[in-house]
This record gives sequence, structure tokens and C-alpha cells, in this order.
Amino acid sequence: MSEPAVKQIVLASRPKGPPLPGNFRLEEVPMPAPPPGGLLLRVLYLSLDAYMRGRMDDRKSYAKPVGLGEVMSGESICEVIASKRPSYAAGDIVLAPTGWRTHAAWDGAALRKLDPALGPITTGLGVLGMPGFTAYAGLNFIGKPKEGETVVVAAASGPVGSLVGQLARMAGARAVGIVGGPEKCRYVADELRFDAAIDHRAPDFAEKLGAACPKGIDVYFENVGGAVWHAVLPLLNRFARVPVCGLVAQYSAAGQPAGPNLLPATMREVLSKSLTLRGFINYEFAAEHYSGFLRTVSDAIANGRVRYREDITDGLESAPAAFIGMLEGRNFGKTLVRVARPA
Amino acid sequence: MSEPAVKQIVLASRPKGPPLPGNFRLEEVPMPAPPPGGLLLRVLYLSLDAYMRGRMDDRKSYAKPVGLGEVMSGESICEVIASKRPSYAAGDIVLAPTGWRTHAAWDGAALRKLDPALGPITTGLGVLGMPGFTAYAGLNFIGKPKEGETVVVAAASGPVGSLVGQLARMAGARAVGIVGGPEKCRYVADELRFDAAIDHRAPDFAEKLGAACPKGIDVYFENVGGAVWHAVLPLLNRFARVPVCGLVAQYSAAGQPAGPNLLPATMREVLSKSLTLRGFINYEFAAEHYSGFLRTVSDAIANGRVRYREDITDGLESAPAAFIGMLEGRNFGKTLVRVARPA
Repeated sequence: MSEPAVKQIVLASRPKGPPLPGNFRLEEVPMPAPPPGGLLLRVLYLSLDAYMRGRMDDRKSYAKPVGLGEVMSGESICEVIASKRPSYAAGDIVLAPTGWRTHAAWDGAALRKLDPALGPITTGLGVLGMPGFTAYAGLNFIGKPKEGETVVVAAASGPVGSLVGQLARMAGARAVGIVGGPEKCRYVADELRFDAAIDHRAPDFAEKLGAACPKGIDVYFENVGGAVWHAVLPLLNRFARVPVCGLVAQYSAAGQPAGPNLLPATMREVLSKSLTLRGFINYEFAAEHYSGFLRTVSDAIANGRVRYREDITDGLESAPAAFIGMLEGRNFGKTLVRVARPA
Repeated sequence: MSEPAVKQIVLASRPKGPPLPGNFRLEEVPMPAPPPGGLLLRVLYLSLDAYMRGRMDDRKSYAKPVGLGEVMSGESICEVIASKRPSYAAGDIVLAPTGWRTHAAWDGAALRKLDPALGPITTGLGVLGMPGFTAYAGLNFIGKPKEGETVVVAAASGPVGSLVGQLARMAGARAVGIVGGPEKCRYVADELRFDAAIDHRAPDFAEKLGAACPKGIDVYFENVGGAVWHAVLPLLNRFARVPVCGLVAQYSAAGQPAGPNLLPATMREVLSKSLTLRGFINYEFAAEHYSGFLRTVSDAIANGRVRYREDITDGLESAPAAFIGMLEGRNFGKTLVRVARPA
């Protein structure tokens, strides 16, 4: 019998524009032993998130890029299969930034044990994980919606957007979701109970958005960038807040886009309407607010006020295709790869 | 002897791009009587401010545009020459939004008596008036500079920028001013005692700005827009704050500017550096903070920590040319028109 091997997906080349399958490479490496004082982890679910596209570029950002030949970065839900660390035992379920691989030797840094009482373990990568906390922090600490105000969010069927709208409703605000396609529209309006859902592919998208926001927009949660912004901008009210947590539409843009130059119009609205644009990374709020988030959102899931949806693909090998599809909006719900089933 | 007449300057036509002398028209109208319960004012000094360019366009903003044939709007320092209002007497010096004219009948709204003890009356339109308060409010309540941080401001020899830098120094921050031309550079560095002054007309402006900000930029007080922003953007530190109070470079831009589209790069920096961009109009802070501003800045003028400069032109007829010159950066200090001398 051959040695058990670890499969991993590395960055083979940097994409120019949208990533292609050839930018990734599947490798096998020998199974490691748990390091002294550390753990050996078996990855059960890998999270695919839009920010990973940014890490594929050799560009300075809030996190350093993935190097060529290095394992793609990412968070996963893992089962501990061997532990040399007293506080962990085989069988424990943990969250760890393992990257795209089937197993990982881990020294214990950046590890978090999941509380299975809070919900199914996959929620630790979605509605009860970083995407959920991104929605919670950006909406509550930057967006600050008041009762009767209007909150608009794009990618509203995704893990961040779906929670933004549901939390906005819980705060007494009107929630308007922007999505791609009629199926997602129905899901956001009917299942997630947003006040309105608009298809950004509709030719009269801007008019429909205006009609769905009769009192203008007080909070626009920016998680896509690009064309949606230009439909939102004229609808923003005085003192509107714009938490900026993602720009999916721009992650794959190569070089400097052609004109017209839309910056002056944006700055003019920032000035004339006293707008606040505020970029953020969820972890700036984590120390103070993560436990409150877990309590609030797990309660809301339990009592049915928050719903979520997952889009699960099987097998580590399928991660690149699932990732490419997600960037194109072909996922429906939080994108996960089931790397292995729990023992 | 003919009836005494009021001279006034009205908007004759809307400018396409930078305003031209032909966009203004000098008119004479009969001298009004003070209205019941009101005042008759003689304008002594008229303030010229960049925001007035925006009012010349027929575009929705925080204030309504000046109509064709209407008197150009603006604030002035006036002497009361007749009063039917018990709280005012002939000879009082007041601040009023009279517009560009020599005399005004006034019902008493939006009037403020000047305290001559605070400084020369012209300061009520500059360092101790709305430009000064714009600097004070934007810097302190949005920029929030901490000791050792770096604050950058453009138009640094003007009434807003000069105070931004001097207040930043009082807060223990490094103040870097951007100006046009070597004479203004010397004034900002030597007279106003900024830590550095950079000429934006220099071919190596961006490099010089970088060299003047070795620890990056924590607060960029945006009061010009345009090219300076693109030199500032890469220097901004994580969590930098950008109060946006004016976009002089854009006020005269007609139509949608040609590419490249600089919005994506700006949004990318907003996201990756967790920047805050916040537009504001000074009066949003006035009720709470105006008296503290007057106290702080008049004290700082008295003890020599704040200096200011005025650029005074004589005669209402010269207002259009002075205004056009100011928009082109040809003023040096707070731009005022002396309409009449105090009796």
C-alpha cells in the first residue's frame, strides 16, 4: 500500500483578468506528522471567497499575495486527526486557515474550536463565520441603519449580502437586494423576505432600483463594485453611509480601465450629499464584537429570523472551477467545497 | 441729484467650464427701504468662495443654484445703516448672506452680529468665519489627527487650507501643504510654519510629496479634487481619514471627463486600506461647535499660533474678475472684495 498523500492546489500562474483553470495546479505531497505541540488536521469543508482573487495578484493589499507555487490561501472546517496539544483531541472540529488542501500539519496558531451547539458546522464558514461577521460589522458599525431607513446590498443571495439584508430588516430598515437572475430574485424576496429584490441584468435595472427605493438609499453595503455603484450613486440620501467590503467586479480587472473617468462624479456626490465611504476588513471589529455576533446571529437562525443557503461542490479537485464560477456569479449561496466527510 | 442706487451683480448666463466675465452682469436697482422689523445694510466686504462656482450650474447640490438674472449668492460683512429691529442699531457690524451687491434690505434672517473684540472685521469672512470653521470642523471631527500623524492639505495658502495645517500642528501632527508656485510655498513653510510645502506645479510633484511624508498620510483634507488626489492616494496609510469639503478643480468641469476611469483604483484603496472618505458642509457641525471654534481660533490668533492672509480687491465691479482669478489660483490668501469703507 502506498503512503497516504496530501492533495493541495497551488497557484501555478497569475491570472490576467478572470482566473482560468490553468492558473491552478493540483499537487500531491507526503502526509506530514503533527508538529511538536501541534495538530494534524483533515479538511472537511473549504470556503471559497471572492477576496481570494485579490491574493492571486502580486499587488500590495491588506494581506500579502499568494506566491507562485504556494498553496492557495483559504479557511476551512477541519477534524483533528492527531493532537500533541492538550487542549485539542482527535475528533474536535476546528476552523483554520489551512488553504486549499486535504490535510494540514498545524502549530495551533489562528485556530478556533467550533461550538456545534450554534449550528451545522458549515455555518462556521458562512453565516456564523467571517462572511457573516463581515455583514454584521459593516452594517452595524459603519452602516448604522435606523428604523425606516433604506439599506441596499448587492450579491444579496450570497453569504454576506443575505445577512446584511436580514439584519437590516431586524433593525427596522427597508432591505433591497440586488442579484443576478430571476431565481435569485425570488429567493431573496420570498425566502429571505427582503422588501424588494432587483435583477441587475435587467435592461431597466437603474429605474427598477429607483422604484424599489422611493425614499432614496441611506446605507449601501458595497460588496461588488462596478456598474451597480453607478445606479446606486444618484439614489443615495444626504448623510448616507457606504461600508465598502468587496469589489468582486474589479478583482479581475487588468490594468487601468478605459474612460469615462467616473471618479469626479463620485467625489461630487460624496461632497454634495455629505456621504461616508468607509472600507473595512471584518477583523478590525472582531476582538470587540465577535462573541456578540455569534450570539445574535445564532439566536436569529434558531428563531427563524435569519436563513441561509449553501452551494456545496464535492472534492478538492473541483475547487478551481467552483471558484471561477463563483466570481462569475454562478454560485447560489455560500460557496463551499466538501473535501471529506466527517468520520 | 439722482436717487441713490444699489449696484448688484447677477448671473447673466451659465458657464460651460471656467466662468468668463460675460457670465456676470452689473445692474443698478433703486435703493430699498428697510422692511418692517428689518434692516437696511451697506455691504463693506464681500467674500468670494470656490463653492459659488457650483451655484452657477443648474445642478442639484446641497444648495439650490442661482437662477439666471438672480444676484450671485455670497456672504458679506455689512454695516447697519437703518434698523427697524430693536436688537440692532445703525453702525452695528453684521455678517449676512446678502449676495454680490452694495446694499440690501434685510428681514433679519441668517444675520449674525460680529464681535469686534475677536479680531478685525474681515476675519469674520475668513479665519473666524465659515472658511475657518470648515477647516476646524473637517479636521477635528472627521480628520481627527493624532500626535505624530501626518496631515496633508491642498490650497494650503488659502483660508481653509492655511488653518487646517496650523490646527494640525497645534494637535501635534506633521502638516504638509500643497500650493501653486514658489511664493506660496515660502509663505506656507516660513510664515505659517507648516513642516513642508510642496508646489503641485513641479514636474516631480508626486515624488516630492512622498518625500515630505516619510511615514505616509493619515489625514488628507480634500479641498481641491483632481490631480492632487492621485498623488495622495498611494501615500495614504491604513485607516486614513479624508474629509472632503471642496473640489475646486472639478467645479468647472463640463460633462463627463475622458478616461482613464480612476474610480476603480480609488475604491480599491478605500477597501484595501480601510479608508474613510467623508463629505461635509461646515454647517452640519455649527450648532454644537461654532462657539468653541471662535474661542479656540481667536485665542490662537491672539497668541500668534494662527496666522492668516487676505487678498482684497476694491469695488463690487471687480468681483467677477477676482472670482475668476481665485478659481485659477491667482489669489493669495482669503479673497475679499472691499465694496465700501466703514463710515
